[in-house]
Amino acid sequence: MRDIAVFSGTAHPDLAAEICAHLGVPLHPVRVSRFANDCLEVQLQANCRERDVFLIQPLVPPVQEHLVELLLMIDAARGASAGRITVVLPHYAYARSDKKDAPRISIGARLVADLLTSAGADRVLAMTLHSPQVHGFFSVPVDHLHALRELATHFRRYDLSNTVVVSPDLGNAKEAAAFARLLGTPVAAGAKQRFSDDLVKISAVIGDVADRDVIVLDDEIAKGSTVVELMEHLRGLNVRSIRLACTHGLFSGDALQRLSDQDGVLEIVCTNTVPIPAAKRVPKLQVLSVAPALAEATRRIHNGESVSALFA
Amino acid sequence: MRDIAVFSGTAHPDLAAEICAHLGVPLHPVRVSRFANDCLEVQLQANCRERDVFLIQPLVPPVQEHLVELLLMIDAARGASAGRITVVLPHYAYARSDKKDAPRISIGARLVADLLTSAGADRVLAMTLHSPQVHGFFSVPVDHLHALRELATHFRRYDLSNTVVVSPDLGNAKEAAAFARLLGTPVAAGAKQRFSDDLVKISAVIGDVADRDVIVLDDEIAKGSTVVELMEHLRGLNVRSIRLACTHGLFSGDALQRLSDQDGVLEIVCTNTVPIPAAKRVPKLQVLSVAPALAEATRRIHNGESVSALFA
Amino acid sequence: MRDIAVFSGTAHPDLAAEICAHLGVPLHPVRVSRFANDCLEVQLQANCRERDVFLIQPLVPPVQEHLVELLLMIDAARGASAGRITVVLPHYAYARSDKKDAPRISIGARLVADLLTSAGADRVLAMTLHSPQVHGFFSVPVDHLHALRELATHFRRYDLSNTVVVSPDLGNAKEAAAFARLLGTPVAAGAKQRFSDDLVKISAVIGDVADRDVIVLDDEIAKGSTVVELMEHLRGLNVRSIRLACTHGLFSGDALQRLSDQDGVLEIVCTNTVPIPAAKRVPKLQVLSVAPALAEATRRIHNGESVSALFA
Amino acid sequence: MRDIAVFSGTAHPDLAAEICAHLGVPLHPVRVSRFANDCLEVQLQANCRERDVFLIQPLVPPVQEHLVELLLMIDAARGASAGRITVVLPHYAYARSDKKDAPRISIGARLVADLLTSAGADRVLAMTLHSPQVHGFFSVPVDHLHALRELATHFRRYDLSNTVVVSPDLGNAKEAAAFARLLGTPVAAGAKQRFSDDLVKISAVIGDVADRDVIVLDDEIAKGSTVVELMEHLRGLNVRSIRLACTHGLFSGDALQRLSDQDGVLEIVCTNTVPIPAAKRVPKLQVLSVAPALAEATRRIHNGESVSALFA
Amino acid sequence: MRDIAVFSGTAHPDLAAEICAHLGVPLHPVRVSRFANDCLEVQLQANCRERDVFLIQPLVPPVQEHLVELLLMIDAARGASAGRITVVLPHYAYARSDKKDAPRISIGARLVADLLTSAGADRVLAMTLHSPQVHGFFSVPVDHLHALRELATHFRRYDLSNTVVVSPDLGNAKEAAAFARLLGTPVAAGAKQRFSDDLVKISAVIGDVADRDVIVLDDEIAKGSTVVELMEHLRGLNVRSIRLACTHGLFSGDALQRLSDQDGVLEIVCTNTVPIPAAKRVPKLQVLSVAPALAEATRRIHNGESVSALFA
Amino acid sequence: MRDIAVFSGTAHPDLAAEICAHLGVPLHPVRVSRFANDCLEVQLQANCRERDVFLIQPLVPPVQEHLVELLLMIDAARGASAGRITVVLPHYAYARSDKKDAPRISIGARLVADLLTSAGADRVLAMTLHSPQVHGFFSVPVDHLHALRELATHFRRYDLSNTVVVSPDLGNAKEAAAFARLLGTPVAAGAKQRFSDDLVKISAVIGDVADRDVIVLDDEIAKGSTVVELMEHLRGLNVRSIRLACTHGLFSGDALQRLSDQDGVLEIVCTNTVPIPAAKRVPKLQVLSVAPALAEATRRIHNGESVSALFA
Repeated sequence: MRDIAVFSGTAHPDLAAEICAHLGVPLHPVRVSRFANDCLEVQLQANCRERDVFLIQPLVPPVQEHLVELLLMIDAARGASAGRITVVLPHYAYARSDKKDAPRISIGARLVADLLTSAGADRVLAMTLHSPQVHGFFSVPVDHLHALRELATHFRRYDLSNTVVVSPDLGNAKEAAAFARLLGTPVAAGAKQRFSDDLVKISAVIGDVADRDVIVLDDEIAKGSTVVELMEHLRGLNVRSIRLACTHGLFSGDALQRLSDQDGVLEIVCTNTVPIPAAKRVPKLQVLSVAPALAEATRRIHNGESVSALFA
Repeated sequence: MRDIAVFSGTAHPDLAAEICAHLGVPLHPVRVSRFANDCLEVQLQANCRERDVFLIQPLVPPVQEHLVELLLMIDAARGASAGRITVVLPHYAYARSDKKDAPRISIGARLVADLLTSAGADRVLAMTLHSPQVHGFFSVPVDHLHALRELATHFRRYDLSNTVVVSPDLGNAKEAAAFARLLGTPVAAGAKQRFSDDLVKISAVIGDVADRDVIVLDDEIAKGSTVVELMEHLRGLNVRSIRLACTHGLFSGDALQRLSDQDGVLEIVCTNTVPIPAAKRVPKLQVLSVAPALAEATRRIHNGESVSALFA
Repeated sequence: MRDIAVFSGTAHPDLAAEICAHLGVPLHPVRVSRFANDCLEVQLQANCRERDVFLIQPLVPPVQEHLVELLLMIDAARGASAGRITVVLPHYAYARSDKKDAPRISIGARLVADLLTSAGADRVLAMTLHSPQVHGFFSVPVDHLHALRELATHFRRYDLSNTVVVSPDLGNAKEAAAFARLLGTPVAAGAKQRFSDDLVKISAVIGDVADRDVIVLDDEIAKGSTVVELMEHLRGLNVRSIRLACTHGLFSGDALQRLSDQDGVLEIVCTNTVPIPAAKRVPKLQVLSVAPALAEATRRIHNGESVSALFA
Repeated sequence: MRDIAVFSGTAHPDLAAEICAHLGVPLHPVRVSRFANDCLEVQLQANCRERDVFLIQPLVPPVQEHLVELLLMIDAARGASAGRITVVLPHYAYARSDKKDAPRISIGARLVADLLTSAGADRVLAMTLHSPQVHGFFSVPVDHLHALRELATHFRRYDLSNTVVVSPDLGNAKEAAAFARLLGTPVAAGAKQRFSDDLVKISAVIGDVADRDVIVLDDEIAKGSTVVELMEHLRGLNVRSIRLACTHGLFSGDALQRLSDQDGVLEIVCTNTVPIPAAKRVPKLQVLSVAPALAEATRRIHNGESVSALFA
Repeated sequence: MRDIAVFSGTAHPDLAAEICAHLGVPLHPVRVSRFANDCLEVQLQANCRERDVFLIQPLVPPVQEHLVELLLMIDAARGASAGRITVVLPHYAYARSDKKDAPRISIGARLVADLLTSAGADRVLAMTLHSPQVHGFFSVPVDHLHALRELATHFRRYDLSNTVVVSPDLGNAKEAAAFARLLGTPVAAGAKQRFSDDLVKISAVIGDVADRDVIVLDDEIAKGSTVVELMEHLRGLNVRSIRLACTHGLFSGDALQRLSDQDGVLEIVCTNTVPIPAAKRVPKLQVLSVAPALAEATRRIHNGESVSALFA
Repeated sequence: MRDIAVFSGTAHPDLAAEICAHLGVPLHPVRVSRFANDCLEVQLQANCRERDVFLIQPLVPPVQEHLVELLLMIDAARGASAGRITVVLPHYAYARSDKKDAPRISIGARLVADLLTSAGADRVLAMTLHSPQVHGFFSVPVDHLHALRELATHFRRYDLSNTVVVSPDLGNAKEAAAFARLLGTPVAAGAKQRFSDDLVKISAVIGDVADRDVIVLDDEIAKGSTVVELMEHLRGLNVRSIRLACTHGLFSGDALQRLSDQDGVLEIVCTNTVPIPAAKRVPKLQVLSVAPALAEATRRIHNGESVSALFA
């Protein structure tokens, strides 16, 4: 079997290092230079020839910088005769641009999938894509992991007998329903109403939440405005407690502090698909590691073993 | 401007004829031969050279026959030097296969999109795709119409003050929510629970439906089992009346009769994206025509006018 | 070397089982589901990752169903990270659509070849293609076997000193000439004449057949009308006996019975590239197995050994 | 409609000039330079931008020079923003390499078709391809003309009541049969036998030729060995007279003189798809012009009119 | 002829506006949104259907942001059924990454060219590419303008009788030589020497510069270090005066001030392919507009007129 | 690891044999047939299935014959199921056509790169490409060797203390500068001036050459006119001696004799990338072998070892 060669871009070296530690292989360095005209050049610092190359790069802010850097890494690996190139995307930010809900916009999730293939990606390892259909945007094989098991393991430490899982959005409630099934709890969802072109607000919570311990589940939390709005409704419905959970903890600006300050929030749980600077972290934050899952999937991809068997 | 040339496969010639009548252009015949070895051959019976060719074929049962016939029509048009080939898909059955929810299955919606492009399709005109992400499975431009306006026009004749729109499935409730906004009504949804690998049942209706006039909305109704199950719940919740609405009325087997026989069903409304044989029709069935919408979109595509402007 | 993984679609599981028996490998099951809207979904029931996958599916009636099923199988194998996908096509029905002999028709043999590649086929193993040029329609490597050796082995049991091989059609007589060389006999051919647009009839037999034992050879027999017509001529020319031979015994409708009932027919010989239901079989029918040849070719493809060396 | 712009490579400027004269358009010059390292550079000497460009170049000896020159012309036209590029191939020499009849050889007819597309050809206008399947080797639309009408017009001046059309090869007799139908005559064919690996000889003439006026028809005559061999057989069978006819008169070496010197040859008829130097011409040679047919097809392609309608 | 529709990204709206003013067409707005997760979404604010779309975006800092924005604009135009998409790249920053001069690096100029095509670009209008070979990196037609005529026009106002054009780099001196021919002056060049892996310095000026008025010409000036180093050598060789000229005035950091402060610098001339903020401008700076040239090329591309004829 | 299989076309069998001798593997024969119509057919005479195939063919005169032969070899290897196809191009003649310096010409270096890929090349091993950018014209991985080390080893036998390396062309002086650094000498260059459209002459030598031993370095010498012109200037500048060096010694016509006859020429050094017939060789000619370098690169490519490490 060809040797494995793992490289990390600049987006999240800590996660890459943790994955490599689990795999017991070195994390090879990448030199990223920026020319005076602001163009990037990457140089993979280890032999790629006929190797089974894995390039780890979540598309976290600054997204455009990390995306172009990743494309250059893929191209460099291809030009260096990599045997196979697997792009590891712990967070695929552009997955949210998955439909054309206005005229003359780009479907970014499909475009970026095509760009990755055009640059030379042979396969993709992704985690918790915004919608399951995004899998189909790729013309190369995708292994799509979910962090629901990691999240469920965390929450099973609590008494869940009075708990309900709540999705902020009725239209994306499938994930919440699957999570509720994992925990053996009921599910509820916020219903949004469009008041004007620009104003969409949660108008109601559909399902029974009164006097319940609520776990709010979303795939990613960025500004957190929707979640804040949902919590106002939940408090109005006299919920007993609120825990927030998501896979991708982007927490842009002061979102973490703002969410932490909300009345009744006991805990904010996310995974480490996105790096969170120490300065932003709050005491209520719990970050679960997906490195073991990504490492095991990487190992199985490299060895030609079933990935679905693992996560069944 | 190049001349328009409209052809219909064997799937739904009535709809094609109606579209052509609205456009004021002839529907050109297609000869479909079946050889002794069961292979199909299609011959487009009018000059295609440099024409703006539209091929109308919903993927209705027998789906595989109609799909291969359509692929042969596209290839024939390409080989005959069509200037542009637009595939008109009033019903894209494979859109339901839009994700990989089990290992080692095909994502049929993406595969068939690629097959259509591989055969030579330059663009697609589709109606009410099962999920909006399916748009992104096509590597050619898609005009995606919705029949919600036709359905809303129909229902506005009733007093809607006590009405609620109900989606059979929490996870696909976005469409129902959009429809409810069009009608100015609230929305509710069935929540499904997986009892075993094979058994998924509606466990609850989330939202307020008691004493309400209910409009159940789904994108397509085939066997109707989910809708029947939902109606049992609705009756248990003392709804006042039930109307069923969908874009794609597939009504496989005796579904129409079975739905019509359900207690409390006042009306079953669908569009003519799928042909419904006279023998199957029931008195409670109302079929709305999407031919005007498809004709107007075709006209705009042909003339290079904005399609989104029309349906905004 | 990567492990081999052999799957069969629903077209001809007996042949697939026989091939696997010869190879000494298991035939992996494929789950084929049909949704209420008539769409198919296939699930390959064994791990494909990095395996050398062979998908066995002759395009026999219902051809369109089997073709789409095959395309879905290929796509599923690709999405499941198969190391290589070889499509085994014991009968490629669309090979007959190999030219554009009327305006605005599809060249089905090229289109379907492109569809198979578009779905992800890496190579093809075919048997007795209608014309040798069809090989060139594929953009992936093709191993093209012939059943002439199996047929010749069968006929060598007879005294061939007074035998002539007859092709029903002057224009396709090359195969018959090659077969005659294998048997050491002369060759003759029917000459067709077009009496009107729709009426083409055999007008003469070119070559000496009087008082001869005739072996009529064609690549496939479906309705058998041409062969029946040829036999009328042959009887008029006082042939001594007639044996019919072909690779692909499609025998649509009651063709087998009809051919068997013809005066002077001693034997009908075909191979098992196409399944023949027991109910259709007649005593004069001899079915030769191509499973050993297909198994040996599969073994050589898997092991990287020369296939042409075998069949030279 | 975009303007037409016709260019000729160096292969057959006379034919190109004649086509342009029929079209009433100028033949634009092409500068072909040969560098000291033997590389070619072509410069199209007229504006191509958005024009409907036709590049006329039969693949006649030196074939490789003319092929590469043609590929450079196509690429130059594409780079110069041609609106559409039609390659006019009055003789497609590589069409004879249409099957893989030995291991590890190239299928040249498919390869060259792919090279032309890869260089940027949008469509092809060809004449009398060696086999009709070669049409399917192109992934772009092909208009395939035949010279049988020109040849038939020529021969109809003679009393054909005692005439038979003879194909040199049983396996390629379809064209001869079609020609015989056009002339209202019977057909016969030479049957070849393989005596050893290298030696294939005509062993018999199948069909009735004694005391007949024979027209031998082939698609191309190069060395003429097969035809010479056939004529020996024909003379042995006491034919009354022999006329030779073909579309592509390559006549390599002294073939024309040798054929002309054969006993009983009254006439050698070909078309001008291949240039024949004055020094080679013999008194018995009749060269028919296909320029009117190619010009009319070009005109119709340019104007978007049916080409098949013309040649039906 | 299809209507023209010109859009500008956020990189250089002033240049786009100036081009549109010359063309006499409106500059259509583009809405660029940035989501909370830092992904971009662009919406073209005017109908693109069947239009001849031009997207103006120099790849200036922040290059990655502008590149991804441009790719999204192209994809949006394609999805909106643009008739043709021309990318106008007044400055193609990645053109400098045109060779693989170290192992395992990307050839960025080729990669980005492929990305633009993959997103849907039909053609490119570029100015002063770093090397003429970069033209060949694009698989779509490129119109490649040079600003030498604008620069020459500017410098002809001076007495050039004692002037020499100096290239900072011997290896890229072709452009300087061409410019010198335009001005009728001799040419000289700096010769670089590699002292260590990281240290390359100008070791000499090859050619006669003493007592001359020098025009230093480079394609782009970013940090200006090479030019500063060259000027030290020039002063040591007793040149009479120095003027700096380039097409792409990137002037990163305080480069403009630093260059302006150099002894003996009379003038710094560049074009407006790159925006220069007012705050950076120095009195010695002269910015020439390429908008007339780009507008005229755009007009000719739109009208199908020769672009090379203009700039010959 | 897959077996290696090396084939040579007819362009330079001696070099191929020498490479194979260094590798210790057999050189497999290729049968090249020329049909009567001048088409080529190649047959690879050894099993290619799953092998690591190397095809050695410099594009030397007759270039078009060798190019088409190479394309047929690639296609044959692909059709014969080669595991990987590496094209070894010791001389890539079309690399000189690397830019579009006149309207409506082809960029031959890009076109031929695309043709090689279209035929099935998986990677390329090239030597001393005319410009380093040509590397980027290939969409497959390229290993680009230089012969500067071989040349430098040769010249280090001389006292180089008074030596200068001279490039005939200012615009391509980078290679000469690199060579000078290898030898530790200064560098100079000829400056060309365009006197009219057709007349470009060396107008001066930039840099100090008087009383020096000169090594003139170019990548290829064909007619040698530029070098002859340069030497006239050098003699006028009183150089002490002249040696000529190049990688690709094409020496068209009587170039070798003419160069050898020039006053002051001590030696003409080239490599064996291009075959030089014995009849052309002159006493002053030294031919260095690049076979060891090409063999070592081939070995490393086959074994998946770093090629850049070797040539660093």
